[in-house]
Amino acid sequence: MRAVDIIIKKRDRGELSKEEIEYFVWGFTSGEITEYQAAAWAMAVLLNGMTMREITDLTLAMAHSGETIDLSGVVALAVDKHSTGGVGDKTTLVAEPIVAACGLPVGKMSGRGLGFSGGTLDKMESIPGYRTNLSTQEFIAQLRKIGLVLTGQSADLAPADGKLYSLRDVTGTVQSIPLIASSVMSKKIAAGAQAIVLDVKLGLGAFMTDLQQARQLSETMVMIGKLAGLQTICLLSDMNQPLGCAVGNALEVIEAIDTLHGKGPADFREHCLTVAGHMLALGGKADSAQSGKELALAALQDGRAWELFRQLVQAQNGDVSFIDQPDKLPKANLVKTVRAAHSGCLSQVHARLIGEASVKLGAGRSRKSDPIDHAVGLVIHHKVGDFISAGEPLFTVHANDAVRLEEAVQAVQAAFQWSDERVPALPLFYGVVSA
Amino acid sequence: MRAVDIIIKKRDRGELSKEEIEYFVWGFTSGEITEYQAAAWAMAVLLNGMTMREITDLTLAMAHSGETIDLSGVVALAVDKHSTGGVGDKTTLVAEPIVAACGLPVGKMSGRGLGFSGGTLDKMESIPGYRTNLSTQEFIAQLRKIGLVLTGQSADLAPADGKLYSLRDVTGTVQSIPLIASSVMSKKIAAGAQAIVLDVKLGLGAFMTDLQQARQLSETMVMIGKLAGLQTICLLSDMNQPLGCAVGNALEVIEAIDTLHGKGPADFREHCLTVAGHMLALGGKADSAQSGKELALAALQDGRAWELFRQLVQAQNGDVSFIDQPDKLPKANLVKTVRAAHSGCLSQVHARLIGEASVKLGAGRSRKSDPIDHAVGLVIHHKVGDFISAGEPLFTVHANDAVRLEEAVQAVQAAFQWSDERVPALPLFYGVVSA
Repeated sequence: MRAVDIIIKKRDRGELSKEEIEYFVWGFTSGEITEYQAAAWAMAVLLNGMTMREITDLTLAMAHSGETIDLSGVVALAVDKHSTGGVGDKTTLVAEPIVAACGLPVGKMSGRGLGFSGGTLDKMESIPGYRTNLSTQEFIAQLRKIGLVLTGQSADLAPADGKLYSLRDVTGTVQSIPLIASSVMSKKIAAGAQAIVLDVKLGLGAFMTDLQQARQLSETMVMIGKLAGLQTICLLSDMNQPLGCAVGNALEVIEAIDTLHGKGPADFREHCLTVAGHMLALGGKADSAQSGKELALAALQDGRAWELFRQLVQAQNGDVSFIDQPDKLPKANLVKTVRAAHSGCLSQVHARLIGEASVKLGAGRSRKSDPIDHAVGLVIHHKVGDFISAGEPLFTVHANDAVRLEEAVQAVQAAFQWSDERVPALPLFYGVVSA
Repeated sequence: MRAVDIIIKKRDRGELSKEEIEYFVWGFTSGEITEYQAAAWAMAVLLNGMTMREITDLTLAMAHSGETIDLSGVVALAVDKHSTGGVGDKTTLVAEPIVAACGLPVGKMSGRGLGFSGGTLDKMESIPGYRTNLSTQEFIAQLRKIGLVLTGQSADLAPADGKLYSLRDVTGTVQSIPLIASSVMSKKIAAGAQAIVLDVKLGLGAFMTDLQQARQLSETMVMIGKLAGLQTICLLSDMNQPLGCAVGNALEVIEAIDTLHGKGPADFREHCLTVAGHMLALGGKADSAQSGKELALAALQDGRAWELFRQLVQAQNGDVSFIDQPDKLPKANLVKTVRAAHSGCLSQVHARLIGEASVKLGAGRSRKSDPIDHAVGLVIHHKVGDFISAGEPLFTVHANDAVRLEEAVQAVQAAFQWSDERVPALPLFYGVVSA
């Protein structure tokens, strides 16, 4: 087999065989197939598409391109959760302790933030001492012991996906449903998932801005799951405005702690309970997502979820005094609250502009190697549809630099749009896709 | 400007600006833009196409990516000739001396063979001592002195094209009319051509097998010429069967010498006279291609063309005794003539299969680094449409290895198809495309 013939076949709209896909993934991982050949191939895939059979073979080939984790002897059913990424999305910090508290163990490997989208690991690292580099052995031991793990992806899982993703990022080949779907699913399969709830974000602050595209991606991932023998469900959720109020690492941890204490923003709390309900249903702990949500609510209200989050932090070497007294978490030097200059109804809180403003403050990364400032960020006090009177607090900027503070004030102000008419609130979810 | 944005623009069917194309070509040549980015871009160009304006900007950017040769002070009008490559195509060896003998100086930079298609430089190097590495200064001095040069491309002409072509070869992005057309034209423009006759081969032994594609390529090159200020004419010529009889380096030189002496195969002679006629018309030495052809015939018949070929060999350090007595040219140890097993009319002499058989004998290269055996090759004694009686010589194999000889006999036999009915001869030309 020759790489160039496989590229030409896809260029000419052919359907690649399982053997051709496996050869290409193996060759690319081993370095036998060059980056320029993989780039040409990725562009041909983006422009000419792939059949479901090809996408599934690609997913499985990437999943098996390195180590895989087998959780079948560790938990009854390994349920995972994945978000396609958004602004203020700290769902994992709340939903996973809830699910674990309901008796369904969850071990999750999360990622870091890049661009306007935040990352779960960066948020957890606001807590001094918290380790995100557990070995596979440590991962399994902790999952057995407390039923909850939240760590980084060990380097050897799905290396083909990691290598291909880096290449796609610089060759204009990110926006391909076959490539996005296989990337997400391959990592989850390599990490041992047997059932997955996918939180597919769509809107101004998501990689997908369009419902039809998000639905197509969801249907593709559900179909991969079906063909690969995994239960998969996709929730299409709103990312036009940030989820919850806080955007920035320590600020989001504080919001998650508030939520675990039964408080927190209503939209975020509702989002977490819905995600947890679906996970519990998928994991066989509830008959339906609705009854799963009721179990989730109980575990949140009686403090079991909070207790498990505390155990998680402790198990991974985090200093629990920082979550018991969140005041101890990293704090920015400059805090400025901006008030509404006039009265009116909020018609837009542009999630992407807010995400970008938080990156500029230092809360996120433009490039992979950029450092993170855990203290800085934004709190947006209102949601689309809220009526606000002149003088009410609109948003608060947490900064460690006066110039950046003022830049953030300008940038966030530009993210708001106002209406004199009443504007309906945005829905939390646009639909559910399952097999 | 960022390479990835330029790739994305083309991926999304946008029209690249002149500045974007120049940045991409400059960046790729300098190494600022990576090979994997260029590969993704080339695939996007192949699948989404380019406008004539983009193709012309790409051609000029590549032409100016390195040194350029200015022949305006050297010759009245620099006329060049280029073949897209075929089997047995030794036209340059005959047409250019004819044209120069008619008073139109021609300085040509040729290439080497790759795959089933032969290269002019390899043929000329059958003559001991013949230099194909003239410097630009030597090129110009010889063009002034004898009006005829036939050498290799100096390394610094259109380096962007050379780099991109190597990449396209291994990324499945060769078959793109915008990329083929700009590659051909950029080299010719960099080499100082002001008018060009393009011999566009089509058929079983050419890169283009289809008349419509060849016509589209021709129209594209003619239009580039028009927009870039060059007179350009394309001859669509047959490459279903080899041109002339000889395939292989020294064998082709012998056939060219025969033709310069007024003999040689009728199809090859006619082809050379037609090409020369068009060059003379383009160069202002004749009113029409037809009257140019008459001038060409005269220069062939009275020995002036032969005399100029002799001067060329001498000027470039070749030993003329080898062309005066072609018997001295490299000879294969094993020569076997295969005769027709039955009578019938030839309906196919598959040029590509014959080209590949000659490569396997050692006359050509599978990879750029392969050595060449100048002595070996094939002589095909008949043309499509010929009626052949059983026992007549069909083809002759010249080999330096008994196993390869027998393999070639099998391979060439498979290139012939026979008919009991009368089959018309193949045309030499399918048309002419000009502005």
